[in-house]
Amino acid sequence: MYGAQSLVRTLVDSGVEVTFANPGTSEMHLVTAIDTTPGMRAVLGLFEGVVTGMADGYARIAEKPAATLLHLGPGLANGLANLHNARRASSPVVNIVGDHATHHLQLDAPLTSDIVGFARPVSGWVHTATHQLSVGSDAARAVQAARQHPGQIATLILPADVAWTEGGVPAPPLPVAGAAPFDAGRVSAVADAVRAGRRVGILMRGEALKQRGLTAAGRVATAGDVRLMADTFSPRIQKGAGRVQVTRLPYFAEQLVEYLADLEVLVIVGTKPPVTFFAYPGKPSWGAAEHTEIIHLALAHQDTVGALEALAETLGVASAAPVVADLRIDDTVGDKFDGWAIGRAIARHLPEGAIIADEGGTSGGGAQASLATCVPHDQISLTGGSIGQGLPVATGAAVAAPDRKVVCLHGDGGAMYTVQALWTQARERLDVTTVIFANRSYAILNIELQRTGAGVPGAKARAMLDLSDPTIDWVQIARGMGVEAVRAETPESFEAAFSSAMRQRGPRLIEARL
Amino acid sequence: MYGAQSLVRTLVDSGVEVTFANPGTSEMHLVTAIDTTPGMRAVLGLFEGVVTGMADGYARIAEKPAATLLHLGPGLANGLANLHNARRASSPVVNIVGDHATHHLQLDAPLTSDIVGFARPVSGWVHTATHQLSVGSDAARAVQAARQHPGQIATLILPADVAWTEGGVPAPPLPVAGAAPFDAGRVSAVADAVRAGRRVGILMRGEALKQRGLTAAGRVATAGDVRLMADTFSPRIQKGAGRVQVTRLPYFAEQLVEYLADLEVLVIVGTKPPVTFFAYPGKPSWGAAEHTEIIHLALAHQDTVGALEALAETLGVASAAPVVADLRIDDTVGDKFDGWAIGRAIARHLPEGAIIADEGGTSGGGAQASLATCVPHDQISLTGGSIGQGLPVATGAAVAAPDRKVVCLHGDGGAMYTVQALWTQARERLDVTTVIFANRSYAILNIELQRTGAGVPGAKARAMLDLSDPTIDWVQIARGMGVEAVRAETPESFEAAFSSAMRQRGPRLIEARL
Repeated sequence: MYGAQSLVRTLVDSGVEVTFANPGTSEMHLVTAIDTTPGMRAVLGLFEGVVTGMADGYARIAEKPAATLLHLGPGLANGLANLHNARRASSPVVNIVGDHATHHLQLDAPLTSDIVGFARPVSGWVHTATHQLSVGSDAARAVQAARQHPGQIATLILPADVAWTEGGVPAPPLPVAGAAPFDAGRVSAVADAVRAGRRVGILMRGEALKQRGLTAAGRVATAGDVRLMADTFSPRIQKGAGRVQVTRLPYFAEQLVEYLADLEVLVIVGTKPPVTFFAYPGKPSWGAAEHTEIIHLALAHQDTVGALEALAETLGVASAAPVVADLRIDDTVGDKFDGWAIGRAIARHLPEGAIIADEGGTSGGGAQASLATCVPHDQISLTGGSIGQGLPVATGAAVAAPDRKVVCLHGDGGAMYTVQALWTQARERLDVTTVIFANRSYAILNIELQRTGAGVPGAKARAMLDLSDPTIDWVQIARGMGVEAVRAETPESFEAAFSSAMRQRGPRLIEARL
Repeated sequence: MYGAQSLVRTLVDSGVEVTFANPGTSEMHLVTAIDTTPGMRAVLGLFEGVVTGMADGYARIAEKPAATLLHLGPGLANGLANLHNARRASSPVVNIVGDHATHHLQLDAPLTSDIVGFARPVSGWVHTATHQLSVGSDAARAVQAARQHPGQIATLILPADVAWTEGGVPAPPLPVAGAAPFDAGRVSAVADAVRAGRRVGILMRGEALKQRGLTAAGRVATAGDVRLMADTFSPRIQKGAGRVQVTRLPYFAEQLVEYLADLEVLVIVGTKPPVTFFAYPGKPSWGAAEHTEIIHLALAHQDTVGALEALAETLGVASAAPVVADLRIDDTVGDKFDGWAIGRAIARHLPEGAIIADEGGTSGGGAQASLATCVPHDQISLTGGSIGQGLPVATGAAVAAPDRKVVCLHGDGGAMYTVQALWTQARERLDVTTVIFANRSYAILNIELQRTGAGVPGAKARAMLDLSDPTIDWVQIARGMGVEAVRAETPESFEAAFSSAMRQRGPRLIEARL
C-alpha cells in the first residue's frame, strides 16, 4: 500500500465518500488510489473553482465533508474563491492538494509555488505530509479538523513521493468534537428580556435555521415581542409551508439599519452582529442601532439549537405551537417577464424537498418572496460574496442528494465564472435545473455605482458593467456542455419550460432572457 | 481629484495604457477614475483568470505592463493561476486589487479576506495604499516595480476609502532600472570553451530569444561546436524563416537527459539550468549530465543580449553570417487528421508577423515542427504550467498588437479553464483565431499515469482523465460567446477553415475534432 492509498483508505474509513477532483501529473497516485479503494467516488470538475464549489454544496446537504483533489498551487489557487465561500459557510471540506516530490521542490520547476501561502487564508487547518508512514494519520486529522464544529476547510498537502512510496498505514477515524455547550446565563438573560416585554430580534445561522432550531425559535416567538431573522446569506435554511418563517436581513446598508432600528435587544445565535456587505461614503457599516443591546445567546461553535430549546423551556413555551407558514401559491401569471413572474412560476411547480441554490443576485428577490410559502425545501446561498458559486454548489448538492430536485437560480454575470459546472452535471446525470437570469449586465454594480457616489458613469464605466455586447447565448453554451437548454422570454414560456423540467430528471438549463 | 483618479492618472503618466478589469462594488471609484481619465483603456474580462492572463499576454507583446482591476481577495484569488504563469514569464503586471474601506475591514464582512496573503506567492512587490495623498506615488512605485528587469508582478491593494476620498495627488513616473551589466569574466570563460572546441550548448530565455539575441547567438554558433537551445516553455520566442533556429528542450525527463548528455559545457543565458517539469519515481529531475560544466553567462536580470554580442565579438564572429532557417513549407495534406496535419496547414497559411499563443499540449508538437520554417512570427507559451492560459494570453496579445494576426493553439482540457476569454475577443473585435485540439481527454495525464508508475488505471481512474462524456461542443460554446466557429474533422476541412480565418479579421474558433 503506497502513501496515497493509505490516505484514501483513511478518508473512506473516516466517512468521506466522494472526492471532487481535477488532478494533474503530481496526483497520479492519488488517482489510482481512489481507483483502487472501494467506497470512494470520484467526480471530475473541469475547473478547480467548480471542484471546490461542489465540495461546499455537498457538505451543506450531506452534513459531512467531501474531499477535493487539486493540482499543486495553481490548482488550489483556481479553487480559492469558492473555498472562501465555503469558509464563510462553515462547510467542512477536506482539501487535498498535490505537490512536487520533496526532492524536486528545491529545483523550482515551473509549477512550483508557495502552496501553504495560497492555502492559509481559507484554511482552518493546513498541513504538509512528510512521510508515507504518517500520511494516513494526517488524513484522519484532516477529517477531524474539517468536522470541528461548525465546520472548516482542512488542507492537506501531499508531496508526490509521499504519495507514491510504499509503506502507507491507514489510520482509524479520530473523535470529532461536537458543538460546545451553550451558556445557561445567556439563556436567562434573553429570557429576561423577552419576559420584560422588550422588543427582541433573534438573528440565526447554521443549525438554528434547520427544522429543530426553527421550531424552537418559533416557540420562543410566542412568548413575547420577538422577531426571527436570518443573515442575508445563510449557508442553508429550511423554508416553506409548515415551517417557522424567518426574515432575511436586507442587503443594502440603509435598509439594514432601518430594519434593525427599533430593536431593544438583538440576540445572536450562531452568527455575528450584522454589518453591511460593503462600506459606502458617509453611510454606516454597523447594522444595529446604538441603543440596541446585543446578547450572544450561542456562538457558532456552540450548541445553538440546544440554546434555543432551553430558551423556550425557560420561557415555558417548550410545547407551544409556533406560527408556521401556510401553503400559499400565487396563480398570477402576469404580463411582465421579470424575477417576480419567475419566482411565482417556480413556487407553483417546485417539488417538495427540493434544494434551491440561490445566486440570483438582483433578480432573485421575486423567487425569495414566492418560495417563502411554497412547499418545504432547503435553500443554500452565496455565503462569501464571491460570485460564481451557484452552479458548482448546486452540482455538489445534487451529488449529496440524488433523490432530491435541485434548482439553481443564477445571475448571468456570476454564472460565467464557473460555467464548466454544467459539464459535470451532464456527466453525472445530476437532477439540476438551472435558471439563468439573463439581464446582460452586472446589474448590482449599476446600482452600487450610484450608491457609492462614484459619479455619473460615462461610456467606459458603463462598458465595464455591461454584458450585452455580445449577448451571451446560454442555450448554446449549455448544449455545448451536454445540458439540455431552452430560452424563455415570456412568463408563459418560462412556466412551460420550468414545469417540464420539474417533471423530468437530469440536468436542464433555462435562460430567462429578461 | 479623488484617490482612485490620482492612481489612474499616475498609471497613464507612467506609460500604462490598458486596464484589464473585472470590478466589484469596492472598485466603483476605480471604474469612474478610468472612465474620467483620458489615455486609459478598459478591457472587461468575465472571469479574473481571463483578466490576469490578458495582462500577461499584453506584456509579452507590448513589452510594458498593463494594469489589472480585481475585486477584493476572491477576485485576486481567481486570477492567481495566471499570475503564477505571468510570474514564470517575468511579465510586468501592475495588479490593482480593491479592498474594503479601512474602517470596514475590522467588521469581517463576508468578502473580507487576507488579500496580502493571497498576493504574496505571485508578487515581487506588494503594497497596501493607506491614504489618498500617497496613492499616486504608490502607483508610480508599482509601475517601477513591475518594470524592474526582467519584469515582475507588482500588487497594489487599494482600500475603497482611499479610492473615494478627495485629495489625490498624481505622481510623476519613476526611473526604471534596466538590465544589470553582464560579467565580462563569464564571457571569456564561454569564449575559451568554444575556442577549445568543447561541445557547448547555449540555453536561452527572455530577450535573448528575440531577433538581436538570436542573431548574436547564431554568430557565436559559427565559431565552434555550439548548439542553441531554448527552454521548453519560453515567454516569447521569435521564430520562422530568416531567423536563427534554436531547439526547444524536450519535455519528458528521459528525453531531456538524453538530449543534454553529450554537452561538455552548458551555458545559461537569462534562465536556469534545466530541470524536469515533474518528478518521477527513480528518474532524474536534473537535466544536465554530471560531467557537464555549467556557466551562467548572464542571469535573467542581466543584459543577456549584450553578453551574447560580447561573446560573438570576443570570438571574432561579430560580423559573421549566422545560419538561419530557410522558408520551407510542406505541401502535404495527407489522410490522417492529427496535430501534424494541422501544423502543416497552419504553416501554409500563417501571415508574416503573426503571434502564436501555444497551449497545444500533447497535440502541439506538429505545429511546433512546421512553424519552425514558415514565415517569421512570434510564439508565446504556457510558462508556468498552469493550464488555461492560452485563450487569455492570446486575447491580451491581440490588444497589444491590433495589426497582427493572433493564432491560439489550445488543448481542449486547458481551454475549458478560461473559456470566458472568447467573449472578450468578440466584444473587442480582436483578430484572434483559436484552434482547439479536441481529443476529449487530459491526454498528457494518460501518458503521465503510465510514466509515474501509478499502475494500470481502472474505470474510476480513466474517468478522471476523460472528457468524452459528454463530448464538449466547442462550436456551440464559442457561438454562445459571440465568436464565429466551425468544426473540422478532416485535413481538408481544417485547411479550408484556417485559410478562411487567415483571410478575414476578427475572432474565429476552429474545433479540430481529433
